[in-house]
Amino acid sequence: MTDKTNTPISVVGLGLMGTALARAFLKAGHPTTVWNRTAAKADALVAEGARLAPTIGDALGGVTIVCLTDYSAVRELLGDAGLDGATLVNLTSGDSAQARETAAWAEKHGARYLDGAIMAIPSSIGTDEAVILLSGPRPDFDLGALGTVSHLGEDPGLASLYDVAGLTMMWSVLNAWLQGTAMLKTAGVDAATYAPFARQIAAGVADWLPGYAEQIDKGSFPAEVSALETDARAMAHMVEESEALGVNAELPKLIKAMADRAIAAGHGGEQYPVLIREFERPGS
Amino acid sequence: MTDKTNTPISVVGLGLMGTALARAFLKAGHPTTVWNRTAAKADALVAEGARLAPTIGDALGGVTIVCLTDYSAVRELLGDAGLDGATLVNLTSGDSAQARETAAWAEKHGARYLDGAIMAIPSSIGTDEAVILLSGPRPDFDLGALGTVSHLGEDPGLASLYDVAGLTMMWSVLNAWLQGTAMLKTAGVDAATYAPFARQIAAGVADWLPGYAEQIDKGSFPAEVSALETDARAMAHMVEESEALGVNAELPKLIKAMADRAIAAGHGGEQYPVLIREFERPGS
Repeated sequence: MTDKTNTPISVVGLGLMGTALARAFLKAGHPTTVWNRTAAKADALVAEGARLAPTIGDALGGVTIVCLTDYSAVRELLGDAGLDGATLVNLTSGDSAQARETAAWAEKHGARYLDGAIMAIPSSIGTDEAVILLSGPRPDFDLGALGTVSHLGEDPGLASLYDVAGLTMMWSVLNAWLQGTAMLKTAGVDAATYAPFARQIAAGVADWLPGYAEQIDKGSFPAEVSALETDARAMAHMVEESEALGVNAELPKLIKAMADRAIAAGHGGEQYPVLIREFERPGS
Repeated sequence: MTDKTNTPISVVGLGLMGTALARAFLKAGHPTTVWNRTAAKADALVAEGARLAPTIGDALGGVTIVCLTDYSAVRELLGDAGLDGATLVNLTSGDSAQARETAAWAEKHGARYLDGAIMAIPSSIGTDEAVILLSGPRPDFDLGALGTVSHLGEDPGLASLYDVAGLTMMWSVLNAWLQGTAMLKTAGVDAATYAPFARQIAAGVADWLPGYAEQIDKGSFPAEVSALETDARAMAHMVEESEALGVNAELPKLIKAMADRAIAAGHGGEQYPVLIREFERPGS
């Protein structure tokens, strides 16, 4: 690995996020080159010490961070730039299929290609809170200036998959909390009173996941804690309570529907993670 | 408060859970009386030091823990027992309306009534992991022998509401993890590899809840971190990725549908907790 801060970096695409990325590299002491279709967007960064690349080809010397609107913009801009020998880290938002296709395309043109996802808002870039996911060939350079960087594996689609999986978790925790908050509000309990309880449950259940994961990897779901059909009775109660309170019941109903399907498929005596069978296939 | 372990306790209803409760009281040194419709179910507990009440009325001397099949069984069994002066802690599973009705009924008959919920399986009773929720008049006795006991407030419906709210969180974290696990499995990532990432996200988001709760209590949702319409673009991507991978997309679709409704109602420029407005009313 080269020294942490002297790898020359280029940032292609200076939207809100690209600008935040370039600024974090500058702050960490990387020689930083920037390029944007509208060059004026680079002015502030140049004043802070960045070099403006006159052409996009000039931005392909070191490690090139690409942060554009979408994957078609990536191919359009880089297609004629001469990628042979370049190292691309594409942090543009997209899905796993786009990541894999773009990896194949870039490699065909002689570039080393990593795909990435940014689980952060621009203002948190450069702090430990900013999670940067990378996938593709293991990097021999350090992007730690951006935040907490993880390399997930060789498959360039992984960063995008972990990103959407993480977002699903994020919104699920928030929605479950909102559901509970709505229920408790009917009894005059304010959101701040309920939140610590919700937080404790979420964090407590999160601790079960590594153990439950073993059941999935073994494909064996003994009801060590509770059987799915016992859970389903409490789920029916959760749906009924939501309806009786006059709050939204769609999330409770979906929870129950998934479990009911697994029970109908013969898994009522097994433990919750057996529901992976339902999550692995398209719903009705 | 009386001494922690010398409050005389009775346990009415010796199913799996009731038996676990009685055993925990015995172990902690409480003088423990038990009663069950089928008296033979008390044999093991009597061998361990419990007193068998000859009639249910004999089980109403100290603090009486009630753990029966449902609330109609509670009223049926206790209706003729002479409740005047009794202290009842009803840990039978039920909803908030049943808890409030039963509280009113018991108080009319001269009893002090607390309603409770047990967030635990029988085998964990007596450990810190067993969460026991109580609501109703503040207790002047200590049920710490059972686990981690919280008194939530005077409204006897609160224990039941916190219980279902907590279960909603539990299943939501598990389902989001299963959704992500299913997505990652399509790329050959096993559940054990993905689980620590899911755990970290769930615990991290849980930490936001107290801050987000302030927005709800103020009724003001400035987009400090991200606006809902920005989130919605990532949600569309989450739905598309699930569909493209051939895994279940119902949870992603519900997440997106709730956000879309809030945006349609004019909240696209506000922050996520504004979705409380959707969770507070019945869905379409």
